[in-house]
Amino acid sequence: MKEILCGTSEITGARFSIYPMSDRFVDIILSSLKEVDTTKVWMMTDDVSTCVRGRSEHVFDVLKAIFLNASIGGDHVVLNATFSNGCPGDSAGDAFMAEDSYLMNNELSQKISQKVAAQFALYPLGIPGYMDVIMDQVKTVDQQGVFSGGVHYASRMDGDANKVFAAMESAFEGARNSDSSHIVMTVTMSANSPSRKEDQ
Amino acid sequence: MKEILCGTSEITGARFSIYPMSDRFVDIILSSLKEVDTTKVWMMTDDVSTCVRGRSEHVFDVLKAIFLNASIGGDHVVLNATFSNGCPGDSAGDAFMAEDSYLMNNELSQKISQKVAAQFALYPLGIPGYMDVIMDQVKTVDQQGVFSGGVHYASRMDGDANKVFAAMESAFEGARNSDSSHIVMTVTMSANSPSRKEDQ
Repeated sequence: MKEILCGTSEITGARFSIYPMSDRFVDIILSSLKEVDTTKVWMMTDDVSTCVRGRSEHVFDVLKAIFLNASIGGDHVVLNATFSNGCPGDSAGDAFMAEDSYLMNNELSQKISQKVAAQFALYPLGIPGYMDVIMDQVKTVDQQGVFSGGVHYASRMDGDANKVFAAMESAFEGARNSDSSHIVMTVTMSANSPSRKEDQ
Repeated sequence: MKEILCGTSEITGARFSIYPMSDRFVDIILSSLKEVDTTKVWMMTDDVSTCVRGRSEHVFDVLKAIFLNASIGGDHVVLNATFSNGCPGDSAGDAFMAEDSYLMNNELSQKISQKVAAQFALYPLGIPGYMDVIMDQVKTVDQQGVFSGGVHYASRMDGDANKVFAAMESAFEGARNSDSSHIVMTVTMSANSPSRKEDQ
């Protein structure tokens, strides 16, 4: 049996998939990838998902850019991602920790205006007081104006994708500063859904 | 700000989405739902995902049946789900805990043969020894013959969907019997992918 692979505490990673609800799903994904600069992250795709690893800011920068470029054509596109920091384990992707913090895709992403609906959940592992960490970070999201309330097992955000991503990144970084040394965050983000709430 | 909503310890819940990579995605989802008996679970759909709550066995039974029926036409379909048990919080769906354990969709699901690739992760919350719980349950999955090794942030399973679901359910139930009183499990399961590994 192979070992469980995770990462060292410095590296942030995300395992994610982009789901375009379209016959052209392969084209949409490949076209999006062409637009995005992934030189500052370690990235590997298999038949189920893609894993990105590196400095936290570049992981968020790359995921946001891929999602925005996939949704730009108006197709119903969903991003599903699990972010992780501090999981005990191996060190693949370590080399990318030396990159500077200049975001390669931010200029491109900020030009794309895209309304999204998202549900996210934080899992601070290894500590009894994890619910306090979660509540604190939900407050962080609320302060950024994109929080729309709790649903079962998640918190909902609505608004512009750039703002929702910023709030999500704040919550993740806030949780990293808690007593928990291993933070997991999941998110499902939907663009151009035909069943989008009318009031958004 | 609304409260975070979770559940009482008896209830298992799952927040999930089905993603058919097809122009007919709405039809595929609705047709699948028509085939599945959801009378033993509480279920609510919004524009991002669907939440199912009730006795653990019925939550797994319903998700498996919805996924299998969505994939039966040969379209590339992905299930993304977060299972949860023991989250402190509200009690919606409590009424369904009185149902007996007869699975409403098992006969239907067992007739559907579908190869899948899946990546799952367990998050036992609130305890320092969570990595041990994870390792124990990965062993459980391995014993059932569908484990294909660790990937970053997840464990991979390949095989018949009914077997993969059984292994996943075993891991979840095993983790519920650990010291952790709040278990979260995420899974991404893919059927009919054009990039499926050739050796499966």
